[in-house]
Amino acid sequence: MSQAKFDDLRGRLAEIADLGKTMALLGWDQHVMMPRKGASIRAEQMATVGRIAHTKFTSAEIGSLLDDLRSWGEQQDYDSFEASLIRVTARDWEKSRQVPADLRAEMSRSAALANQVWIDARANNDFKTFLPVLRKNLDLRKRYIDCFDVKDEPYDIVLDDYERDMTTKEVRRIFDYLKEHQAPLVKEVAARGGNDSKPRDFGFEEQKAFELEVVKAFGFTDDAWRLDPTVHPFASGTGVTDIRITTRYFPDHLGGLFGTMHEFGHGLYERQVDPSLERSPLARGVSLGMHESQSRMWENLVGRARPFWRHFFPRLQELFPTVAGEDVESWYREVNRVEPSLIRVESDEATYNLHIILRFELEQAMLNDEVSLEQLPEEWNSRMFDYLGIEVPNDTEGVLQDVHWSGGSIGYFPTYALGNLISAQIWEKIVADLPDLDASFEQGDFAPLRDWLGEHLHHLGRKYTPGETLERVVGTSQIDPEPYVRYLRSKLADIYGIATTAA
Amino acid sequence: MSQAKFDDLRGRLAEIADLGKTMALLGWDQHVMMPRKGASIRAEQMATVGRIAHTKFTSAEIGSLLDDLRSWGEQQDYDSFEASLIRVTARDWEKSRQVPADLRAEMSRSAALANQVWIDARANNDFKTFLPVLRKNLDLRKRYIDCFDVKDEPYDIVLDDYERDMTTKEVRRIFDYLKEHQAPLVKEVAARGGNDSKPRDFGFEEQKAFELEVVKAFGFTDDAWRLDPTVHPFASGTGVTDIRITTRYFPDHLGGLFGTMHEFGHGLYERQVDPSLERSPLARGVSLGMHESQSRMWENLVGRARPFWRHFFPRLQELFPTVAGEDVESWYREVNRVEPSLIRVESDEATYNLHIILRFELEQAMLNDEVSLEQLPEEWNSRMFDYLGIEVPNDTEGVLQDVHWSGGSIGYFPTYALGNLISAQIWEKIVADLPDLDASFEQGDFAPLRDWLGEHLHHLGRKYTPGETLERVVGTSQIDPEPYVRYLRSKLADIYGIATTAA
Repeated sequence: MSQAKFDDLRGRLAEIADLGKTMALLGWDQHVMMPRKGASIRAEQMATVGRIAHTKFTSAEIGSLLDDLRSWGEQQDYDSFEASLIRVTARDWEKSRQVPADLRAEMSRSAALANQVWIDARANNDFKTFLPVLRKNLDLRKRYIDCFDVKDEPYDIVLDDYERDMTTKEVRRIFDYLKEHQAPLVKEVAARGGNDSKPRDFGFEEQKAFELEVVKAFGFTDDAWRLDPTVHPFASGTGVTDIRITTRYFPDHLGGLFGTMHEFGHGLYERQVDPSLERSPLARGVSLGMHESQSRMWENLVGRARPFWRHFFPRLQELFPTVAGEDVESWYREVNRVEPSLIRVESDEATYNLHIILRFELEQAMLNDEVSLEQLPEEWNSRMFDYLGIEVPNDTEGVLQDVHWSGGSIGYFPTYALGNLISAQIWEKIVADLPDLDASFEQGDFAPLRDWLGEHLHHLGRKYTPGETLERVVGTSQIDPEPYVRYLRSKLADIYGIATTAA
Repeated sequence: MSQAKFDDLRGRLAEIADLGKTMALLGWDQHVMMPRKGASIRAEQMATVGRIAHTKFTSAEIGSLLDDLRSWGEQQDYDSFEASLIRVTARDWEKSRQVPADLRAEMSRSAALANQVWIDARANNDFKTFLPVLRKNLDLRKRYIDCFDVKDEPYDIVLDDYERDMTTKEVRRIFDYLKEHQAPLVKEVAARGGNDSKPRDFGFEEQKAFELEVVKAFGFTDDAWRLDPTVHPFASGTGVTDIRITTRYFPDHLGGLFGTMHEFGHGLYERQVDPSLERSPLARGVSLGMHESQSRMWENLVGRARPFWRHFFPRLQELFPTVAGEDVESWYREVNRVEPSLIRVESDEATYNLHIILRFELEQAMLNDEVSLEQLPEEWNSRMFDYLGIEVPNDTEGVLQDVHWSGGSIGYFPTYALGNLISAQIWEKIVADLPDLDASFEQGDFAPLRDWLGEHLHHLGRKYTPGETLERVVGTSQIDPEPYVRYLRSKLADIYGIATTAA
């Protein structure tokens, strides 16, 4: 009886998972393949598939199946597919039922309309035209928060959408640590100077070839992956056996390569989810923070480390005359250049988190009406000076730089920084388990890392909460900022000669 | 009241249209972009989206809206969107309700399973292993026919799925005319001989460039079309502003080019459907036969005619050294070479319909149990000798060559030949309306033809029946084989010197 109900639930969730992956394909195609004029009909198609999936998921039938299965599920092994599916789905379902369909629709519509306004405002350095749609998005977000029972801080509600169970208080504790320990590193480096960037020239075809060689060494295979160019790179896919990453190419630097390694990290997480979870809500990475830990790991802890370049630098020199005269050590320093800069997505490992802290603080201020939206650019600029020591020349390179607020995404930014921190936490565990990791990277063998991640993290999918997942990987459910700061200081001591321990 | 019900109906049909186009994208991606290992999860996604669309369409709600709107619809102008939508949807709905969901599911499953069996059987020239799945497909097709009220011949039921309102008797009348008047042309040509093919060598990159130049001259634009390589070319898309055609390249002949012009014809039909029909079941070509008339027109009546090559041959010579020494007249004869051959999809204009007649006759014999399936290869081979004068050396190049029967598609083949016939019927109307057509082609201007087709045919979409549509274009609802035979005889008289009138 319960088994039959479970099978019914599972079948319904499989159908909803199919619709979710269909949405992913509609979105991937939109950004990678679709002819320009297909945009308006595509918006209708995505709205239709999204609405059907949402309606099916929030149905009373699923609610009553979950009710009926609750105690049966609790009798199953906690780690079993059955118990996990019921546990995770019950939480998803309860959350999804809090928000009325018309508010959800209004949020989607407002976000869609705001996008073009934001694009124009950013292009014209005109915050004033963005102000009304930002206000509208913010009001909707407040109404969204009002649908829930705020136990401590309103920001907790939106944060939970992107990083389940994470609290504002916890993020604040972590970020305060970073302000105290990471921000000084940047100032120490700035005091040392040196390590200027050089003008470079990278051919597009050679970049394509090189990126493919790199991700193929990492684990990309033609039978289960795609790599395509797009304007704003992302990772997507239609299942654990169909992973799609995207990239872009710049003429004068290898930012595209690091972006590709980043998206590979996202893709590999999805690729190595246990196939038995396929067609269920458990068949994906557990949270945005954990996902970002994987992308940042392959981009930075692998792709900006010496062993990687000891292996790949000779090939880089073969392909690109612009680096022919360099040695691997100077190239290593070049790709690890630290300099406070205006744009988050272009910032280096040492400064990135500081960009996030600024946004985290402004988002809370907005939700709590502690800052008027008219004042937002000023608040942005003064914090940029406080945290990074630089002047913001215009709003295009300041408060208007990110897409998130135009889409109504408030509470998303912290996951980027949390991802950085988690990546270092996991890395300390990995190097303890795999003492020969550097040596294998230097030989171009990334299988030990890939397999470790698959076995310890990726295969879990979304069976547990982010905290439970982290605990299974590193032994604690708490995000700890110390390993990341340790990693940064050690790397910067090596490159810039700053002190190996804090003053 | 009725307007509100109509709006309700229209909204439901818009949602179903979105799902239909989403299916099209899932299918296009599967054949053009998807990594190989994505196949099994993709099958689930397509089954889910297809099932949801079918369930929504066959719902009692749509039936009762149609009932309630019937008399209101009849009061509207026959040509109006409202009257057309109600009329066409009522017919679709009634047909879809005849077939139980489990039979439909069994047909899909059987077709999916048979596909791999057919691929292997064809590769191994092993009809025996294909026999059981063919028998299963045939039995299911008979059960399908039993769901309907057979007025005259069972074959009418399956034919109507692909060419609404067409009857077996009518096709037989048309095909008998072709047997009497087209088959002798092939024999007359064979008696003349001459026009041997030459070994050729065409670079892939140059083929890509040339095909793009051709379809861009025809009306392909980057903002609303895509052209991509695939294994078995087809045309698809997600709306009137997003048309996707596919092609393939051969090293030793330009079959890919003619295929691309063919798919362009399909694509242009969809591209020029009246945009006001978008997101409704009227936003597509009216039937397979009419669609094929458009693809064959651009492939043959345009792409295998002198004016086209007078314009493009110099460019062909620039790109391909293999034709450098030719003149346009010899090239024209080469691309119009007539020779009875084994494979339908590679056959020329003069013999193509004869391949179809054979299949049409065998399909009826199968449905009527007039031939045992064990005898099918023999029946195939003896007809090939009767109609085309050639011996079939093996089943791979005989009865196993087409995918259709493995997919359960019986009744589809005649639409190919009907398309050829319709193309010539429309063409006679076009050249009467546009006396300067040849001259504009010679200057590379295909807009007059494209616009004529848009205005007289394409914009109608599926508002009328195929017969009503044909009547609006050429003045009669009857498919007439005479113009095609006239066209063929005249062309072959010119190239091979056969008599300009039948003996």
